[in-house]
Amino acid sequence: MSTEQLSRTHVSLLSIGDELLLGEITDTNMPWISRTLLPLGLTVCGSETVGDEISDIVAAFQRALARSAIVIATGGLGPTDDDLTNEAVARAVGVELEFYEEVMEQMATRLKRPISSLSGSNRKQANLPKGARVMKNDWGTAPGVHFSTNDGKHIFLMPGVPREMKGLLQERIVPWLKEHYPARQSIVVHSLHAFGVGESLIGERIKPLMQTGQNPNVGTRVNNMTVTVRLVATGESEAQARAVLTPVIAQVRDALREGYFGEGDITLASATLAALNAKNWTVACAESCTAGLLTSTLAEIPGASAALLESVVVYSNEAKTKLCGVKPETLKAHGAVSAETAAELAVGIRERSGATIGVSVTGIAGPDGGTPTKPVGLVFYGVATERGVKTFERMFAGMDRNGVRERASSVAIDLIRRECQ
Amino acid sequence: MSTEQLSRTHVSLLSIGDELLLGEITDTNMPWISRTLLPLGLTVCGSETVGDEISDIVAAFQRALARSAIVIATGGLGPTDDDLTNEAVARAVGVELEFYEEVMEQMATRLKRPISSLSGSNRKQANLPKGARVMKNDWGTAPGVHFSTNDGKHIFLMPGVPREMKGLLQERIVPWLKEHYPARQSIVVHSLHAFGVGESLIGERIKPLMQTGQNPNVGTRVNNMTVTVRLVATGESEAQARAVLTPVIAQVRDALREGYFGEGDITLASATLAALNAKNWTVACAESCTAGLLTSTLAEIPGASAALLESVVVYSNEAKTKLCGVKPETLKAHGAVSAETAAELAVGIRERSGATIGVSVTGIAGPDGGTPTKPVGLVFYGVATERGVKTFERMFAGMDRNGVRERASSVAIDLIRRECQ
Repeated sequence: MSTEQLSRTHVSLLSIGDELLLGEITDTNMPWISRTLLPLGLTVCGSETVGDEISDIVAAFQRALARSAIVIATGGLGPTDDDLTNEAVARAVGVELEFYEEVMEQMATRLKRPISSLSGSNRKQANLPKGARVMKNDWGTAPGVHFSTNDGKHIFLMPGVPREMKGLLQERIVPWLKEHYPARQSIVVHSLHAFGVGESLIGERIKPLMQTGQNPNVGTRVNNMTVTVRLVATGESEAQARAVLTPVIAQVRDALREGYFGEGDITLASATLAALNAKNWTVACAESCTAGLLTSTLAEIPGASAALLESVVVYSNEAKTKLCGVKPETLKAHGAVSAETAAELAVGIRERSGATIGVSVTGIAGPDGGTPTKPVGLVFYGVATERGVKTFERMFAGMDRNGVRERASSVAIDLIRRECQ
Repeated sequence: MSTEQLSRTHVSLLSIGDELLLGEITDTNMPWISRTLLPLGLTVCGSETVGDEISDIVAAFQRALARSAIVIATGGLGPTDDDLTNEAVARAVGVELEFYEEVMEQMATRLKRPISSLSGSNRKQANLPKGARVMKNDWGTAPGVHFSTNDGKHIFLMPGVPREMKGLLQERIVPWLKEHYPARQSIVVHSLHAFGVGESLIGERIKPLMQTGQNPNVGTRVNNMTVTVRLVATGESEAQARAVLTPVIAQVRDALREGYFGEGDITLASATLAALNAKNWTVACAESCTAGLLTSTLAEIPGASAALLESVVVYSNEAKTKLCGVKPETLKAHGAVSAETAAELAVGIRERSGATIGVSVTGIAGPDGGTPTKPVGLVFYGVATERGVKTFERMFAGMDRNGVRERASSVAIDLIRRECQ
């Protein structure tokens, strides 16, 4: 997405506040605004975060105006002395601040108090760049602000509180943009997902599709062993953009092959639950090193209770024996982290729960407990069905406790999914 | 934090990737890096996010170098064609790319394959700006990169994968910064945490401490019912900064009172495990709506297995009866989501596991399953000890499924902690 082309539909975002720069909070507004604008044919070409220093905010607005037609900023509209966004916009575009009586009226209505009782800090919130349009905030006190520059650019200011930002964006800004920036192009985003295949291998296979400047634009990312290929198609209409996507989707599906599990909003967990539900199968889990993470990840999906019969967390050898019937001889001969124990755990939880599939995870998450023959990161799995039990061994090297636990859990979910195929 | 003062200790951050601008993922690296640098006396003066367009990345590096002595960038180091960060740095500082054999060796070692078997895309990852220093990545394949400019500025490149970023930052970059940027002023950050008390109530109590311009600077934030008060003290020495903190810490502890559970790196889960370990007590959990999240959250803490005896996930009525001995009459008379069922679950899991404390959670996470008398968000808890069983009821309104599950789990952890007091 070059900033040179299509500059009329390019948006810059600005997040303002020391709490962001100090790392006290994570900026979730930025991705939310991006996702909201994309279907309008508007793309975010850059995003900046600055603190509560007026000169930094002014400079950031000037940079944003230099590269885009629309600037959307969040934060710095509150009543305290470090809320300086309106003043910074006034300086950046060279106008004065002006007192807006209508803002006082809106605040008084919202606070259910007479205007005369409002404090000096509330009065401060009514000082907006001269010529600005007030966007009524039905979700908080600070007004949204829309300022149009002499050269036809648009600045929108919203509070940083996500709930207020979402309200103003959806109810005030999006309708205005739809009217004044009717989409001259449609942008359709589509994602395809695969588990357990290397990103570099997939990158090799779809290399011809990833050349810059192509439509659709193709990118990859990886998170917890799931590789996602993202396609961004542009067309004069949505139908045209979708037509551009169709052949590329087929090529990417082929490239993802052995690891492919779904598209769009589908996650590994939701794909696995859908596979279970399609067969009307149930699952029960015996978790040692993952200690509930496997079950909890499946349970994040609405409706999971239909397929997720029950689970046990069996850290101790006693619990493995008592809850899943693992033989003490097995634990003694092979250890808790072994294919043999994994097999007995899976068979045991399946029999005791009555589930179609019994799955077990036993491994060494660390930081302690590793040995030369059984290092931190070694994990065994059992998958038991009416046809018997299979075991799997994986090694997650170079990871900390929770890195091992996350991967161990993801692989278990993938094993369940594959069992349904 | 003016960019004019102290520019030698100012850092600019850069996050690179279309997936960020498209809003597909939230940038958690930025706040993490900020928090890590602050104790070194280094402050982030600005942060920018750009997509995978080479000219945009080059321009962003040039802007960052113009305003700060240290630039730390994440993303764009992968093997695919849209990974362009090394090339962008080379262009931004005016050097060529050079092939680094040591990177190939490190990748081959990590992948446990001969160098000759590495793909062309792996070779691409070995092309770094000429003169760069390789920072060995023990957490993934893409190397970290450190480039020193002719005018004494420093660029650090890390992969965007949080685990790899954290490893490289803590083990490679922080030690280098400590050696080469010895703090000219000491910044000491101290946090105090409370659970289940309103942020606004705490804000009222510590209002006099929160005036701007004071040392220490005092801020609050809230996450999943934990309110954190953060103190940032500045002094000519660490001792001086700590002296400034001491009286304020006492005032904040007093303000947090009934919810106070710890300070610094302590989390609700780690405080709870520490409380269990201090008494040599054990716990076992029977989870319905949280479905493993409670156990998994406790298990994130290293050494959790000492106190966490076992857990069961009992979604179905059958599992509640079979694994925890809940009477079918109780389920019939009061329903699965009731104080009565919670009590029997807690007593049952305690007796069957032999744990000191048995804890149960049963509720309605949604989106379906709510009724007028038992709406989505209603959760019951049981806490069983040798002294008997107590039940608790909570209502988490206006939240989605996973919001309810997270809060339900946190309250259960807090109930265990309070039982140890």
